[in-house]
Amino acid sequence: MKTYLGNSNKNSAILLIHCPDQKGIVAAVTRFMAENNGNILEIDQHVDKLKGVFFMRVEWDLEGFAIPEEQIEEEFARQIARPFQMKGRISLSRTVPRMAVFVSRYGHCLHDILARYDSGEWNVHIPLIISNHPDMKQAADRYGIDYHQFDVTKDNKSEVEAAQKKLLGEYNIDVMILARYMQILSDDFVADYPGQIINIHHSFLPAFPGARPYHSAFERGVKVIGATSHYVTADLDEGPIIEQDVIHVNHRHSVEDLVRKGRDLEKVVLARAIWHHLQRRTLVFENRTIVFQ
Amino acid sequence: MKTYLGNSNKNSAILLIHCPDQKGIVAAVTRFMAENNGNILEIDQHVDKLKGVFFMRVEWDLEGFAIPEEQIEEEFARQIARPFQMKGRISLSRTVPRMAVFVSRYGHCLHDILARYDSGEWNVHIPLIISNHPDMKQAADRYGIDYHQFDVTKDNKSEVEAAQKKLLGEYNIDVMILARYMQILSDDFVADYPGQIINIHHSFLPAFPGARPYHSAFERGVKVIGATSHYVTADLDEGPIIEQDVIHVNHRHSVEDLVRKGRDLEKVVLARAIWHHLQRRTLVFENRTIVFQ
Amino acid sequence: MKTYLGNSNKNSAILLIHCPDQKGIVAAVTRFMAENNGNILEIDQHVDKLKGVFFMRVEWDLEGFAIPEEQIEEEFARQIARPFQMKGRISLSRTVPRMAVFVSRYGHCLHDILARYDSGEWNVHIPLIISNHPDMKQAADRYGIDYHQFDVTKDNKSEVEAAQKKLLGEYNIDVMILARYMQILSDDFVADYPGQIINIHHSFLPAFPGARPYHSAFERGVKVIGATSHYVTADLDEGPIIEQDVIHVNHRHSVEDLVRKGRDLEKVVLARAIWHHLQRRTLVFENRTIVFQ
Amino acid sequence: MKTYLGNSNKNSAILLIHCPDQKGIVAAVTRFMAENNGNILEIDQHVDKLKGVFFMRVEWDLEGFAIPEEQIEEEFARQIARPFQMKGRISLSRTVPRMAVFVSRYGHCLHDILARYDSGEWNVHIPLIISNHPDMKQAADRYGIDYHQFDVTKDNKSEVEAAQKKLLGEYNIDVMILARYMQILSDDFVADYPGQIINIHHSFLPAFPGARPYHSAFERGVKVIGATSHYVTADLDEGPIIEQDVIHVNHRHSVEDLVRKGRDLEKVVLARAIWHHLQRRTLVFENRTIVFQ
Repeated sequence: MKTYLGNSNKNSAILLIHCPDQKGIVAAVTRFMAENNGNILEIDQHVDKLKGVFFMRVEWDLEGFAIPEEQIEEEFARQIARPFQMKGRISLSRTVPRMAVFVSRYGHCLHDILARYDSGEWNVHIPLIISNHPDMKQAADRYGIDYHQFDVTKDNKSEVEAAQKKLLGEYNIDVMILARYMQILSDDFVADYPGQIINIHHSFLPAFPGARPYHSAFERGVKVIGATSHYVTADLDEGPIIEQDVIHVNHRHSVEDLVRKGRDLEKVVLARAIWHHLQRRTLVFENRTIVFQ
Repeated sequence: MKTYLGNSNKNSAILLIHCPDQKGIVAAVTRFMAENNGNILEIDQHVDKLKGVFFMRVEWDLEGFAIPEEQIEEEFARQIARPFQMKGRISLSRTVPRMAVFVSRYGHCLHDILARYDSGEWNVHIPLIISNHPDMKQAADRYGIDYHQFDVTKDNKSEVEAAQKKLLGEYNIDVMILARYMQILSDDFVADYPGQIINIHHSFLPAFPGARPYHSAFERGVKVIGATSHYVTADLDEGPIIEQDVIHVNHRHSVEDLVRKGRDLEKVVLARAIWHHLQRRTLVFENRTIVFQ
Repeated sequence: MKTYLGNSNKNSAILLIHCPDQKGIVAAVTRFMAENNGNILEIDQHVDKLKGVFFMRVEWDLEGFAIPEEQIEEEFARQIARPFQMKGRISLSRTVPRMAVFVSRYGHCLHDILARYDSGEWNVHIPLIISNHPDMKQAADRYGIDYHQFDVTKDNKSEVEAAQKKLLGEYNIDVMILARYMQILSDDFVADYPGQIINIHHSFLPAFPGARPYHSAFERGVKVIGATSHYVTADLDEGPIIEQDVIHVNHRHSVEDLVRKGRDLEKVVLARAIWHHLQRRTLVFENRTIVFQ
Repeated sequence: MKTYLGNSNKNSAILLIHCPDQKGIVAAVTRFMAENNGNILEIDQHVDKLKGVFFMRVEWDLEGFAIPEEQIEEEFARQIARPFQMKGRISLSRTVPRMAVFVSRYGHCLHDILARYDSGEWNVHIPLIISNHPDMKQAADRYGIDYHQFDVTKDNKSEVEAAQKKLLGEYNIDVMILARYMQILSDDFVADYPGQIINIHHSFLPAFPGARPYHSAFERGVKVIGATSHYVTADLDEGPIIEQDVIHVNHRHSVEDLVRKGRDLEKVVLARAIWHHLQRRTLVFENRTIVFQ
């Protein structure tokens, strides 16, 4: 397991919640921290005025915090969350998420993920790579990560997914990254992991959903191409967007040029989305991702 | 009429052509200039390998050029264009295009165009503003530009367009800018001015075509919004793209924020497209705009 | 006076403060609002961990707020600001700032400001334009804004500044914009208006300070050019940066091209900085500008 | 040796030249190709009007070209280059450049280079990595690349450089990449490899040259940070710029955040510069890099 070089030894808790908007939420939450001797490290909130929903992320120092770690969730629920009808979670910053990467034949996103992992850039553990092709096994071996290959056909999809779920359970996986994984996950599979599967799509959605977006972009003669990282939901390419970016192109660029330039975009956009997720900065509400800065 | 502060006194000719790709085109064209004592100021070419089409823009100095101006087009056609089956045109850089601006109630693009015009940034003459509302008359008056208002209803569309065409003819208009003009031009109208009408659409097409793109962008929860300037064709929002750009947004931005931030994008993207067109740097082929740099 | 089309009728108060970092600040401030029946519309805070300083912006609804407007500042000072050693201010969102624009011969930033003003984009009143040239008088006249021209020489600088200060007082000016004003203000002048003078510099500072940055950029062969808007301090081009942006250029661009492309950047970057300032989202601490989003 | 997945089997020649600007250059060069049955695949030229210098890149198909490969250079020199006083070179697109990477302790640029190399993104062979630290040996081993470590001290610099030169000769290295190599090369070393050493500097030069640019950027409170890739010359951080880019930052970003975000920028900017170089699209003249598109 790689050592995270950031603040892995930070002894803090992170609250991520949403609730109906009402007066006094911030005062109540921050009083909870203050009265229990907790120093707030970061606080960020957002009000969706159209829908009347309040969102908040608070990170506070657990050093000297009056409530023992194992009772925080219960105490917060009793004093604050229930009265305000909050939904959400509290996590500890030193808990290291366990990530699985799904990949097919294109290696650029996987290589980028592994290089970041190897250099301790992310607070994550990657014990598992799943693929429907053998191509990336060598990359997995280089970093000592287990590589499980499943040959997916029209007929065995449900068996394969059952086996994958079993594997994900055995490896205690918290989050899955579809790093240009060229298989569509079933609705049932997706439903079992809400907000836990992150995909990279190689266009600026909602433009060019589906297959071969660079070809479509070329055909349309666009002057920018993009990449979109989003949480996976049952509706293909319709999930809540975490991160998007674009680069400029012009008439000189062939489809191959778009593919080549797009690779750099895909890997950086996916990496930023993973970073936000691992930092517990994302909160999905309906089809929108709040990314707290 | 405003004085263009750029190289308005440049005595040059600009060739913009395309033809079937074949050996010897560049050699033949440049020999035509060289043998007639014409110094090439800029040359740019592009080959669409998929379609086998060659595109070129050449600008050359007319100072001392052996062929009299009025015979250049004919001589070039005889010696070069016909043998190579070229389509295109030759224009003189000192010819000042005459531009009409169509506008409705949003003034930001119009204001930006007028400020650039007033400061001599563009080599253009703007004698005419057409609108379906009275709102922008004051702005037109400030700059001494004729303002013609047409009240467009379901029933009078063809009469209005006939009157507009008459007006465009009287003012000798070469190029029309739809500066957030909220009326759809008829196919017949558009067909009469191929490659002469430039629109600004407030999204990164092909995402969010049609009305209220900022609302749609907000609904979809995108992390970038964009603007697209394109030549107008019969297919609404489907014309050849000249220029596109985007800016980043996040969950904090309301629809009103998107509209506000989008305005800056729209005016800059439209201005860049107009600049390319006025500099005779654009060449449309099928649904793609070649923008020579 | 132009009508601001945003939330000008918003009946809210805005708190902008900084103080030594310590436990319980957020809880204390938000309790102040909550206990007095004030609904928080937006809250944003930042901790500079290196310097141990806490920064916060809170906007809350005054509808039904228990403390009368004229006593808010005093009550907040007594209950919260003094105990926490806070520095800062409270302002009302419906107070319309009064802005003066300083300009020389380049009109693009001024034109852009006036167009935004005219279209009600900003919550501001612009009663005064000051210049050392006559060139922009016509633009001022178009919008009915008083234009005062001062011929600045080596010998009369202090008299001119004295006359300008008098004028700024008579017009009750809150904020000054140097919209490509080609005169250097004296240290004394600058010292009289801390955090009230915003400049646009046509480079990505700290690169290319001083005169003729586009020429320097061209000479250095950079591949991006930029613009920087900052608060003016005694050290020329060294003030706290509010906003910066860049665009890509290449070897084809002449100095004139850089100037032309840079104009679009300058006006947009300056406009964003003015927007942040007018929205009371900026807080200067030492040489850094906190821009609350 | 990795297989380049692009047009490695392209049988073309690439001309890169500059000469005093004069009439007839393009005509003469393109006639040379046309008369010898060479189909021009790409042509790009640029005139530096200030200095009166003409630059050109031409790529043409060698299939059926009348002049045998080994005589092209001589024939072109005799017929064209000498009469026009051209300087430059002709190379074959199927010649694979041999690249050495210099690295110290930061691995992100090296990892990125190796992943691109491994996936066949570049037409290059990387037989050698040189370092003053052991840290990256494992990465080199993973890809089967020789790793030579030199412990550089104040006293042994010239011996180390002599040994490195010997090594570069033995490995037939054409181009060196300083992938965050934390040693300054001597003027003599640099002089031996003009236009063959590419560096990545972690700021938007000329801002923040020298050591610790992210710390300086943080201190200055900039709103963008950048990266610059340039050819190395005797003047540190003053060499001709190949590629630059920036990203936006704000007051929330600590120095560590700038370092983290900057890494992504550095690797992408360096990769783009390497791509341009490997494609023979760069031409250095005085302190400026022409990057043909």
